[in-house]
Amino acid sequence: IHDVQEIYKIATIPGDGIGVEITEAAVRVLQKLASSSGTIHFEFENFDWSSKTYLKKGYYIPPDGIDKLKNFDAVYFGAVGWPNVPDHISLWGLMLPLRNSLQQYVNVRPTRILRGTSSPLRNCKPGDLDWVIIRENSEGEYSGHGGTTHAASGSAVATEVSIFTQVGIERIMRFAFETAQKRPRKKLTMVTKSNAQRHGMVLWDTVYHEVKKDYPDVETDKMLVDAMTVRMTLHPETMDTIVATNLHADILSDLAAALSGSIGIAPSSNLDPTRRNPSMFEPIHGSAPDIAGKGIANPVGAFWSAAEMVRWLGQEDAADKLMECIEKVTESGTKTKDLGGSSTTEQVTVAVCNELEKAF
Amino acid sequence: IHDVQEIYKIATIPGDGIGVEITEAAVRVLQKLASSSGTIHFEFENFDWSSKTYLKKGYYIPPDGIDKLKNFDAVYFGAVGWPNVPDHISLWGLMLPLRNSLQQYVNVRPTRILRGTSSPLRNCKPGDLDWVIIRENSEGEYSGHGGTTHAASGSAVATEVSIFTQVGIERIMRFAFETAQKRPRKKLTMVTKSNAQRHGMVLWDTVYHEVKKDYPDVETDKMLVDAMTVRMTLHPETMDTIVATNLHADILSDLAAALSGSIGIAPSSNLDPTRRNPSMFEPIHGSAPDIAGKGIANPVGAFWSAAEMVRWLGQEDAADKLMECIEKVTESGTKTKDLGGSSTTEQVTVAVCNELEKAF
Ligand SMILES: CC(C)[C@H](C(=O)O)[C@@H](O)C(=O)O
Ligand SMILES: CC(C)[C@H](C(=O)O)[C@@H](O)C(=O)O
Repeated sequence: IHDVQEIYKIATIPGDGIGVEITEAAVRVLQKLASSSGTIHFEFENFDWSSKTYLKKGYYIPPDGIDKLKNFDAVYFGAVGWPNVPDHISLWGLMLPLRNSLQQYVNVRPTRILRGTSSPLRNCKPGDLDWVIIRENSEGEYSGHGGTTHAASGSAVATEVSIFTQVGIERIMRFAFETAQKRPRKKLTMVTKSNAQRHGMVLWDTVYHEVKKDYPDVETDKMLVDAMTVRMTLHPETMDTIVATNLHADILSDLAAALSGSIGIAPSSNLDPTRRNPSMFEPIHGSAPDIAGKGIANPVGAFWSAAEMVRWLGQEDAADKLMECIEKVTESGTKTKDLGGSSTTEQVTVAVCNELEKAF
Repeated sequence: IHDVQEIYKIATIPGDGIGVEITEAAVRVLQKLASSSGTIHFEFENFDWSSKTYLKKGYYIPPDGIDKLKNFDAVYFGAVGWPNVPDHISLWGLMLPLRNSLQQYVNVRPTRILRGTSSPLRNCKPGDLDWVIIRENSEGEYSGHGGTTHAASGSAVATEVSIFTQVGIERIMRFAFETAQKRPRKKLTMVTKSNAQRHGMVLWDTVYHEVKKDYPDVETDKMLVDAMTVRMTLHPETMDTIVATNLHADILSDLAAALSGSIGIAPSSNLDPTRRNPSMFEPIHGSAPDIAGKGIANPVGAFWSAAEMVRWLGQEDAADKLMECIEKVTESGTKTKDLGGSSTTEQVTVAVCNELEKAF
């Protein structure tokens, strides 16, 4: 029937809470995408690295875990975090080491208002909010450095050391300029807090000014992170591509998701642009213990992340078709509660699969 | 006519840009408040510490500057920052040393939707958004520590060291609990990023859990800073008092101002709760070079800051009256452009002064 099939090996790490439910849904959607296309084939292998296994074994990632992942074309990640493990243990046990060991130094976070959904902002029409946030994903405020002293004395002192490297800043900056260049508006907003943080943030500014010279066709501006939240809220239409540090972009991308309607729809791609390591795709929402197991989690962020994975694997057309199917479904009103609907995870998943059958 | 007059000595530091215009407006309003009340008297002394004087003299604050300020009952600050001085120079030259030398370790940032104004959020009714953000104002991400190495090599490394002390965290936490306790809803939301930042942020969590025991009547919850932006945007009615670090609260308070309609209305109080040093009051907006000198800056944030100053000086009734006059004016439609009106700074100022004449 079809002569050529591209085979992709995908590692899935569902993790905790709704991570399990939405990963399962994403795998079903990806399998339907593959069978409908006829030219794509996915081989999934599941890795049960979760807070449950941590409590049994004392680790999230087994000693040979990272090496195993390197044999895959991509990693699909659900969410991590569970009330019986402190958050800093679960994240430094699973998500952050993955991003770091696989050299995924870019985190791409697109946001726009999907058809059939709306912004909580009164004056924001769908086309007004269409951003892609490029998050530095390997250093800065997430270096993990620092410590605590005099803990027993009642006057403890603790430090968090943000480490910024010129190499690290330059590579994220170039990625951001190239992303902006490929988008219709060719516009980049660079965010720091260099007025208050006068070392690492000033290095960001310096590198930005250097790199900028190589992309004269990109229109640029510069914002402070606090003022950026105001601009996103009051003038969403004035921005397009946004680049910021690990922490700043973490905060701004959650805000972006909220302004586009729900944290449940937002995707993210953890990329190693050199392609020496597999990249990792995950919705930006967390494990949501409060709704876990109820079958009501919004799978749209997971599906959109899956589409980004498919795009990264080189299947542009399939990625576009998947996005179109997702939006047909939101448009039809088959939406979970966070988007104002009353559908379950299952209903949204089935609806997207049905659309995929008709899409090729 | 009046037997007793309370005399308050106020130092004004207008600073740069619209700081000058709105400080002038605030002084006029305070003088009118005083004369209308008949029982309050302000003695103002102006300090010309600005980027203009910096460029002439090489410093913002003269050597005896801080000592001079200590003779005042309060400091009123406009804004600092001007395009011809790098922001980190102007802030570390003026605003940050003031906060630090005067031991103003608390920054109080109330936000609510004033009468006659509205939130950009579709579903946010005036009473839904009524927060007070308690910002740690003396340490953390604003410690100023860190540095840059290998700057000439093309592979520079820069650090920003956030320093958190148990003493510093405990005092801000107690202030926040006491603020919450005095408000009708008695509710405190504590914000950190302790999942990713596992030293200083975990110390925040620890101190919070200890201090909490002393305030059993305060209802509490805990948020991560990224998720907090989502909650502020989608569920504003679920929060009341909020406590966060220097940087997190900086970001969240700008967002709060935007969600309440405009950054132009938001006040802030830099407090030394021990009252050993004068406290300092300033609108949270900046010097706004783009609109400086045009007479269109919104003076409401400056007036609200003035009201907070009057309250801190012990004149509760006068503070309430001033707030009432400000809201009568916004309600009447005399508003600057950022609030959807077309009035000038002068018109708003005159309108508030007129209301003050009738208020006592
Ligand atoms: C869970 C947390 C550590 C993570 C982050 O801050 O990176 C998450 O918020 C995200 O945005 O992916
Ligand atoms: C100007 C800047 C340093 C300042 C801050 O970050 O503290 C301002 O944003 C504020 O919120 O008062």
